[in-house]
Amino acid sequence: MNAHPLLETINAPADLRRLSRAELKLLAHELRDFVLQSVSRTGGHLSSNLGTVELTIALHAVFDTPHDRLVWDVGHQTYPHKILTGRRERMGSLRQLGGISGFPRRDESEYDTFGTAHSSTSISAALGMALAAQLKGENRHAVAIIGDGAMTAGMAFEALNNAGVPHAGIPANMLVVLNDNDMSISPPVGALNKYLARLMSGKFYAAAREGAKSVLKNAPPLLELARRLEEHAKGMVIPGTIFEEFGFNYVGPIDGHDLDALIPTLENLRDKKGPQFLHVVTKKGYGYKLAEADPIAYHGPGKFDPALGLVKPATPPKPTFTQVFGQWLCDMAAADPRLVGITPAMREGSGMVEFHQRFPQRYFDVGIAEQHAVTFGAGLACEGLKPVVAIYSTFLQRGYDQLIHDVALQNLPVVFALDRAGLVGADGATHAGAYDIAFLRCIPNVSLLAPADEDECRTALTTAFRQQHPVAVRYPRGAGVGKPVQPGFAEWPWGKGEVRRRGQRIAILAFGTLLYPALEVGERLDATVANMRFIKPLDTALVAELARTHDAIVTVEEGCLPGGAGAAVMEALQAAGLDTPVLALGLPDEFIEHGDPAKLLALVGLDAAGIEQAVLKRFGPKPALVAPVQAAVNE
Amino acid sequence: MNAHPLLETINAPADLRRLSRAELKLLAHELRDFVLQSVSRTGGHLSSNLGTVELTIALHAVFDTPHDRLVWDVGHQTYPHKILTGRRERMGSLRQLGGISGFPRRDESEYDTFGTAHSSTSISAALGMALAAQLKGENRHAVAIIGDGAMTAGMAFEALNNAGVPHAGIPANMLVVLNDNDMSISPPVGALNKYLARLMSGKFYAAAREGAKSVLKNAPPLLELARRLEEHAKGMVIPGTIFEEFGFNYVGPIDGHDLDALIPTLENLRDKKGPQFLHVVTKKGYGYKLAEADPIAYHGPGKFDPALGLVKPATPPKPTFTQVFGQWLCDMAAADPRLVGITPAMREGSGMVEFHQRFPQRYFDVGIAEQHAVTFGAGLACEGLKPVVAIYSTFLQRGYDQLIHDVALQNLPVVFALDRAGLVGADGATHAGAYDIAFLRCIPNVSLLAPADEDECRTALTTAFRQQHPVAVRYPRGAGVGKPVQPGFAEWPWGKGEVRRRGQRIAILAFGTLLYPALEVGERLDATVANMRFIKPLDTALVAELARTHDAIVTVEEGCLPGGAGAAVMEALQAAGLDTPVLALGLPDEFIEHGDPAKLLALVGLDAAGIEQAVLKRFGPKPALVAPVQAAVNE
Repeated sequence: MNAHPLLETINAPADLRRLSRAELKLLAHELRDFVLQSVSRTGGHLSSNLGTVELTIALHAVFDTPHDRLVWDVGHQTYPHKILTGRRERMGSLRQLGGISGFPRRDESEYDTFGTAHSSTSISAALGMALAAQLKGENRHAVAIIGDGAMTAGMAFEALNNAGVPHAGIPANMLVVLNDNDMSISPPVGALNKYLARLMSGKFYAAAREGAKSVLKNAPPLLELARRLEEHAKGMVIPGTIFEEFGFNYVGPIDGHDLDALIPTLENLRDKKGPQFLHVVTKKGYGYKLAEADPIAYHGPGKFDPALGLVKPATPPKPTFTQVFGQWLCDMAAADPRLVGITPAMREGSGMVEFHQRFPQRYFDVGIAEQHAVTFGAGLACEGLKPVVAIYSTFLQRGYDQLIHDVALQNLPVVFALDRAGLVGADGATHAGAYDIAFLRCIPNVSLLAPADEDECRTALTTAFRQQHPVAVRYPRGAGVGKPVQPGFAEWPWGKGEVRRRGQRIAILAFGTLLYPALEVGERLDATVANMRFIKPLDTALVAELARTHDAIVTVEEGCLPGGAGAAVMEALQAAGLDTPVLALGLPDEFIEHGDPAKLLALVGLDAAGIEQAVLKRFGPKPALVAPVQAAVNE
Repeated sequence: MNAHPLLETINAPADLRRLSRAELKLLAHELRDFVLQSVSRTGGHLSSNLGTVELTIALHAVFDTPHDRLVWDVGHQTYPHKILTGRRERMGSLRQLGGISGFPRRDESEYDTFGTAHSSTSISAALGMALAAQLKGENRHAVAIIGDGAMTAGMAFEALNNAGVPHAGIPANMLVVLNDNDMSISPPVGALNKYLARLMSGKFYAAAREGAKSVLKNAPPLLELARRLEEHAKGMVIPGTIFEEFGFNYVGPIDGHDLDALIPTLENLRDKKGPQFLHVVTKKGYGYKLAEADPIAYHGPGKFDPALGLVKPATPPKPTFTQVFGQWLCDMAAADPRLVGITPAMREGSGMVEFHQRFPQRYFDVGIAEQHAVTFGAGLACEGLKPVVAIYSTFLQRGYDQLIHDVALQNLPVVFALDRAGLVGADGATHAGAYDIAFLRCIPNVSLLAPADEDECRTALTTAFRQQHPVAVRYPRGAGVGKPVQPGFAEWPWGKGEVRRRGQRIAILAFGTLLYPALEVGERLDATVANMRFIKPLDTALVAELARTHDAIVTVEEGCLPGGAGAAVMEALQAAGLDTPVLALGLPDEFIEHGDPAKLLALVGLDAAGIEQAVLKRFGPKPALVAPVQAAVNE
């Protein structure tokens, strides 16, 4: 790695507060290089971190961190922040098992005031911190740093609406920094982004160096403005930016890569009372030409050589479940004109680029807006269309009420394609799709399918699409066993699992991709293995048959144990009056850290070795099943 | 009931489209009287329905319903709509078992295009309908009618943001009618409402009768405006209302009780392309002086005499769980200065009026903004305060991701006071708190308590408040058995249930208020009855002890069966290797209709008779337990 002599003297923000403006500029240069070198070795988020180098330095230079609170929205842009707050030497362990997280975490550093990863939480959290300080009589600043993409989510608006009015007569002393880089992961959509672009193109307020209010020196003549006003106002009392209408003192836009603009403006805003709003313009990937040219490709790259940039692997990798979904979506759209596809700002992540290109009229990117995505889909379904809402398992948590109230209650035929179900690896606990089985299984009218491999994923999607009620299909991040995907539209018999291996004593019921380690265990123990396919409706006939013909049932799922598929099997057995013992294997009732997915699965005992060990521990190694151990109940 | 001769000729909107303007005004008069008479006999929502009489007539007069789609946000203001769309004679059955719903329902009428009850869904749904029509080449209008309170919820903003920009180059032909009555259930809060008030006080655009764009005839002189602009613009390119900034053609505010303003304006907007926004001002309770004077009291009254208005009952009713919570909140706030209370626009419904009066600095009404409410609470908790988020079980579904990602993952000590857990009666399936046990039990770090009566509710809240991690306390709508509430701050031993009755053979494990019917059954069958108190952490030691000492376990809960407390008991028994049969009684896996709560509980078999019958059916009537029936598994 190149030398970073100045950066190496910075072990806490207090160190950088001693530097001159010229030294801070040098520090920015070194820090940017360090980020690039570091991410190229570990993989991780790149474009967003290159874009926030100067902003991070300016914030730590102006605010008295950690006494003052910085809340970084989404949090994947906090590598510069981590490097400057004592974690420079741990960056080599980023996103690895036992290493530091790719997101802020309260238990990692006192400078990480709030854990973020899902978008648009920062204003709410910072407002809570600001009002808490005021209630406690503490003199403390709270700053939320939020991107333009995250601003489209409803909860950011809810927080602005709340923050902009005084609480019990006292305005909140907080600062919202809008980091406007004109890009969430997918290109931004929606009216707010168009509005921000207009604000920028207007450049009414470019000269914010002194932090003073501008006179309209670059504006059209007043009479021209008055004419426009007459034409457009219709109801305005005092024209202002929408952020001013929400009660904030708006300043900007200013250049977010110019420390000479950032630092004096932040100093000025720091000393003002009431809610402040600073509009900063940055460029994703700034300073690394390849990332500037293609910030989406460099959003979250794996390891690469900075001199060469990303290169295509010599042998194409196995197709991911995401790609299997994307191909199915295009094929089914070609076959059925009723299909429409919806994504909340995850075109690339959800594999919808080709669908967007081929079916632009039927492709809906609604922005980071999961609530709206689901109910918008319900509206489309009311009119006879067949919406497919592609959404990560973890982000469906944002649209849960809409799924219950707008889709399930009205029994509308919406398909939910739940990507990233189960553990997600480097992103860690915030992004784990651990709960969807439990939180969907309890909702009437909703079915939930779990394909075991790539080919089954396509079949499951087709099966779901052919139903007249809500169906979710869950599949994991990345690739599976590499099962070749058959073209066409094969369909599963509804609600039926299949026995993949007949054995003795023990029946392993696998839900989803863990079928394959379960089959390995089945071979070793000569156990029966069933590929259940349906979590709901559960194939209760198959469950009962296997319960009657075996001494014990083992369930295997990549989902939380409480209320999961294993619990569904127990419920079915009890409802049938069957007392066959059940060993439920799944994710334990705790948040699972980041790290390599295979290692994590082994860690929680969901690889073949772990499953075998658990079965042997509970039911014993002998051919004849010993009675289950009467272990003490503990939790 | 008074005669309503003109109204009685209206059996469908087509009938009213034949009427003259003068006749429509007479119809409005009769319709308002009919609503008042009808609600005074059945109970239901009043203020909001009196406020939408003219708007409803105008919409059905101008739009070709049901071909054109009206989506009524929240939906409790649709009594005039129901009366005009063929349900006049069924209004006597409103909100009763087997009668018509208090909300729009797709299965009740083709005029109910979208089921609404939770707020802020209408723009999303109407946008889906509008774009579906455009995709299908159908000439159809879609109209969302949304209140100013509902506009504060994030998902309304998400939908506006999406609707205001063209989709694949084509603008959405939809109309949003903002019914601005300056009141959600609680008085409105937040910046948006202040903004709307400014729009109204400006009256720049009062003369909308011709639907034409106004010239600024009532505006200050242009130079004065230009001066203000210079002072405030800072970044604006084209001044406009925030709705125009979001891409809508904004018209208003106009008088929503004036058919001569409403009808021509709607006709004009109907014929325009692209997203339209009409700002209508109405008065809740309009035309009934008592309701106008106190719209909150008349928001959802029971039966009353319109001539007298609401009267206080001679004997005060039993205190509700809501009141027990409200009293505890005040008492604990007085004892512990760290306590802060948060409500998403439900001050009255959640019993926080006194708390607001006594502790205004520590009371936070964040508007209809459940997502923000939860994360804002997390922010407060980060600073050492002890937030109590009071939220209906059904509305916590809106803050589910925030509970997982911002509270549970960071293990912050936030107390969730879950009112309306279980069946809610007249409001029906949309408001049922049926799922919280399942969707909370699967989240690590979160505890869930279920008090059995009013006194236990106070103890459960104190117990929750004393913890250092997230705890939810669930309690039902209305009153319980009337157990006197002891003052002070008694606390439960953490994670421990109690045996309330020792009996034979069968152990009934009750979670929450169904303890009392369970005790009746215990008496009749000489069964053991335990008051479990803790759903999570479950008292697994007690479960194991009862399993070992009884032939069968029966679990009873007012929550959904899949993944519920009964499933938790099964999971615990299986983990302990115990094979005692379990009969789980709870809410079946279907949406439960509206109606009297006691009747509904009986209907689903959760009264004492139903529980007894289920136990006898499963385990037989004899003193010595017969083996459980090996029934066929079915689902």
